[in-house]
Amino acid sequence: MYIPAIYKNENQEDIKKFIAENGFAILVNQTNAKLWATHIPLILDENEAGKAILVGHISKENPQGESFKTNTEVLAIFTGVHSYISSSWYDHENVPTWNYVAVHVYGKVKTLNLEEATKSLKKLVDKYEATSEKPLRIEDLSKQTMLQARGITAFEIEITGIEAVKKMSQNRDAKNHQNIISELEKTGCPNSILVAQEMSKKP
Amino acid sequence: MYIPAIYKNENQEDIKKFIAENGFAILVNQTNAKLWATHIPLILDENEAGKAILVGHISKENPQGESFKTNTEVLAIFTGVHSYISSSWYDHENVPTWNYVAVHVYGKVKTLNLEEATKSLKKLVDKYEATSEKPLRIEDLSKQTMLQARGITAFEIEITGIEAVKKMSQNRDAKNHQNIISELEKTGCPNSILVAQEMSKKP
Repeated sequence: MYIPAIYKNENQEDIKKFIAENGFAILVNQTNAKLWATHIPLILDENEAGKAILVGHISKENPQGESFKTNTEVLAIFTGVHSYISSSWYDHENVPTWNYVAVHVYGKVKTLNLEEATKSLKKLVDKYEATSEKPLRIEDLSKQTMLQARGITAFEIEITGIEAVKKMSQNRDAKNHQNIISELEKTGCPNSILVAQEMSKKP
Repeated sequence: MYIPAIYKNENQEDIKKFIAENGFAILVNQTNAKLWATHIPLILDENEAGKAILVGHISKENPQGESFKTNTEVLAIFTGVHSYISSSWYDHENVPTWNYVAVHVYGKVKTLNLEEATKSLKKLVDKYEATSEKPLRIEDLSKQTMLQARGITAFEIEITGIEAVKKMSQNRDAKNHQNIISELEKTGCPNSILVAQEMSKKP
């Protein structure tokens, strides 16, 4: 991804946290010689060799899974809050822009066997059920329900590169920065308010 | 994109509206033999021949623009609201899932000249300034500010295919559907509440 230096995020802890909090990703590759993308939750983990991996699964009906056998190159895109930024909110003339946060993870994909797949499903469900009133647990599901696990292709992606952008008007002075936050809040739009909250965080 | 029949959205008006309301897209292609993605606003328009196009621009510093000269295949991904759906909210045992809306637009990209680029910037700015208190207008900007237009690669994408998914628990009966909405609202999470709102809309 092209990232101007001022917007590059190289804080690894921050990037890990972002992936954990924005885990619904887009998995991109070339499938049957066509750009292909699937929207799925991915979890950041470590393999037995201690290397950073992403773990996820797609339907067996999705041809992307078949493509993993011959083409291991994938890109996982994690997106966060974003909003249009009007330059009419600045105290000087300029062009409008867009504030956003995103992380691109490059890696090599390999499919998992049924046992590994089931373990990965447990981690995924435990993560998202952590705040449930009555947390669902994979190990409590009937054999019948767990047959659905045979309908998926589970995989891990050995990470080869991470690129992270955080474009949050860092190029503006304190006065303009604060004014952008106030104007975003005024819009009443949920996305804009989330960007205002992100911009308000101490770096 | 792999889309089970029940989640396929083929309502062209609905898709157009979605793109207009979720215009901050991800432009994917192969750049220097690598999967490449850029986060930018895109506008749905028509070219002089009356064909549907997407119009946008990226920084001239972004190598993706250079790649357009030799490889015209691109995929534009538009994403909407999404949320984890716990199967503990159903009245029967099942596995959890994710509700989401997305549109994938395939097309062939070509770069625009400076005059066409300036026109495209005007359309973009007019769209996003429509609700501004003091709408910024491209034609009011000084020559000095407009020099920034020379730092971009503007382009149009002639659309060759559109794939749209709307996965909003359509496979659940009325009682479970309503319960999912209630539970999403209870989470207090902005994304989940937006999904509840989307699920509450009449089809």
